[in-house]
Amino acid sequence: MKIENPNPMQWRFAERAEQLQSSFIREILKITQQPEIISFAGGLPSPATFPVDEMKIAFDKVLTNSGKVALQYGPTDGYLPLRQWIADSLSANGVKIVPEQVLMTSGSQQALDLLGKVLIDEGSRVLVETPSYLGALQAFSVYRPEFVSVDTDEHGLVPESLDKVAQGARLLYALPNFQNPTGRTLSLERRHQLVETCARLGLPLIEDDPYGALSYKGAPLPKMVAMNPDGVIYMGSFSKVLTPGIRLGYVVAPLPLVRRLELAKQAADLHTSQLTQMVVHEVIKDGFLDRHIPQIRTLYGDQCQCMLEAMAQHFPASVSWTKPEGGMFIWVTLPKHINAMALLDEAIAAKVAFVPGSPFYANEPETNTLRLSFVTVSPERIRTGIEILGKLIAAKI
Amino acid sequence: MKIENPNPMQWRFAERAEQLQSSFIREILKITQQPEIISFAGGLPSPATFPVDEMKIAFDKVLTNSGKVALQYGPTDGYLPLRQWIADSLSANGVKIVPEQVLMTSGSQQALDLLGKVLIDEGSRVLVETPSYLGALQAFSVYRPEFVSVDTDEHGLVPESLDKVAQGARLLYALPNFQNPTGRTLSLERRHQLVETCARLGLPLIEDDPYGALSYKGAPLPKMVAMNPDGVIYMGSFSKVLTPGIRLGYVVAPLPLVRRLELAKQAADLHTSQLTQMVVHEVIKDGFLDRHIPQIRTLYGDQCQCMLEAMAQHFPASVSWTKPEGGMFIWVTLPKHINAMALLDEAIAAKVAFVPGSPFYANEPETNTLRLSFVTVSPERIRTGIEILGKLIAAKI
Repeated sequence: MKIENPNPMQWRFAERAEQLQSSFIREILKITQQPEIISFAGGLPSPATFPVDEMKIAFDKVLTNSGKVALQYGPTDGYLPLRQWIADSLSANGVKIVPEQVLMTSGSQQALDLLGKVLIDEGSRVLVETPSYLGALQAFSVYRPEFVSVDTDEHGLVPESLDKVAQGARLLYALPNFQNPTGRTLSLERRHQLVETCARLGLPLIEDDPYGALSYKGAPLPKMVAMNPDGVIYMGSFSKVLTPGIRLGYVVAPLPLVRRLELAKQAADLHTSQLTQMVVHEVIKDGFLDRHIPQIRTLYGDQCQCMLEAMAQHFPASVSWTKPEGGMFIWVTLPKHINAMALLDEAIAAKVAFVPGSPFYANEPETNTLRLSFVTVSPERIRTGIEILGKLIAAKI
Repeated sequence: MKIENPNPMQWRFAERAEQLQSSFIREILKITQQPEIISFAGGLPSPATFPVDEMKIAFDKVLTNSGKVALQYGPTDGYLPLRQWIADSLSANGVKIVPEQVLMTSGSQQALDLLGKVLIDEGSRVLVETPSYLGALQAFSVYRPEFVSVDTDEHGLVPESLDKVAQGARLLYALPNFQNPTGRTLSLERRHQLVETCARLGLPLIEDDPYGALSYKGAPLPKMVAMNPDGVIYMGSFSKVLTPGIRLGYVVAPLPLVRRLELAKQAADLHTSQLTQMVVHEVIKDGFLDRHIPQIRTLYGDQCQCMLEAMAQHFPASVSWTKPEGGMFIWVTLPKHINAMALLDEAIAAKVAFVPGSPFYANEPETNTLRLSFVTVSPERIRTGIEILGKLIAAKI
């Protein structure tokens, strides 16, 4: 009963759909998933850290005690006890975050999409770090902003550089802790400066913090949202401290904004899985993360140290790199004349993979940069892979 | 360490954020959740049908056998065995749907958002039924289309009425089986006509089918996607046949479109929970739905029949209503002079709730219409509630 159709469909897409590009990283990941490749390209947390047993027990418990509620439609803003837990965890130094400010999202990627949807018109100026998180550039791109790259150095974003570009901008997006892709941390002094500058300029500041808990050395620096909860939008995630596959994140925003975000979420997917939210609350409510996160820190910290030592041994002297104090990434700067994209082809032929730095730049890319992740690779393979990479780089100098 | 901020933030939202309105239904639901109110307002499936034990066993099995995979990031398009199952279930009459055409979404609401994002520019003409599903109007509204209401009668959408409005339109959105809000079904003859007309006009046809399996009388009518898989976009959901709280739906589209939708989904939330997809596949792969769905049909069918009988007994002769052969809703048309919004105030005072029809119209509303749902109310309370409603209506005639 299929009809005969004389006119093949001519698809006409929305203009914004022309902006859509697949993440370069996800494309690389497809190539590098063969087990013989030593891949430093991933942005995935290590499955060795996933608390499978705790999740299994919690699913059983929630379904047994509250199955009919957990499996029914739920409120758009999210499961209140979990939102309360998040609000409490962010309330510090006399600043109180209330659960009404917390919107649960389907991973923190969705928070980026909702923020773009609610804050960005076509041509809006959007300020980002140099380089910035690729997933944020992708999410915002759909809404067709004009990206402005803000100066960034080894201490993170440079607050003084904001005045000259902030006029009329809609938001500043920053990732202050162990940034993706650079691994850099915004210094405490700069946090204060940045929050004050944004408040003075009336510029909404997005503090994206997926890696904040993964500090290898002492306590993390204070969060900017606690310095000015009326002007800072905080994004968090359970992907790096629990598991990413369940897709659970959150955004904490001043009330006028969070209400708009909630309406945008209602239109986008009604709400995030009730069951998932109840299970995560069940797992974490009695202090599980306080015991669990130190194990992740130790694992990642040891592998980071291993990679840094191997780089010191095998990389030529004209190569420089960041020394992250947490998170998942090291950022490498090669001599100017070496193109990391060309290097990748050679590396893959030699069974090693990484992510070239160019896609992380909103504007002019520095083609001699690349990102390395150490979290899913054993120390032995880290040493082997870095040695191979060092030889390939040395051959170009 | 909170900063003193002399300038309270002046929020500037994107123009599209001005379109955002809370679903009127969700607002009514907040009022009507008190247990003493007999609510026909819900659009929620009955929790009595949720297969809690089967879900619990499946979560345990998937986490035991594949925990590290289920909890890791997954592919944007979804879990392949589930996409294969969906493709197979839609392949009929010699038409083959392939898994590459299937994109898993976070509920079918997300499919609506992604379709709007990829197909609608500001001012694009979007054709919808009269009345149409409120959630679709909300999702599309974000992208600021010009809605065109297409003529609809008791057999559903009128295909002949398309020619005069289709010129330059971006899509036609239709809900052919037991439509929300009217409960109407598009006749077989009209399905063929509609598919042929859309193909001739080059107009993408969205076939939204959340209730298709919930047929009370015999086999459901053939799906339009099987009549022209090159021009019809099919949307399905596990919310009404399994459980809604897990947020799992899908869209099946021709390859050029599904690729765009996948890119839009990657930017919107990376992917839908791997764990949820693997669990749903585990539950359904051996024919569970073939045993489970008849139970839902019986429960809903009996309650629908009960409501129809009570309406025949208690509603004045000048009131008319649809006689659905499946799904969750009955649509009531009052005498012209009765405003359903005003009636709702009186009904809530008398402890009965429903949804007025106006929000379901993209353009001029018929204010004398309302929607009743029978699925979560016991027969006894259905009879009581309909009797109260009948008296309130009679008093206005």
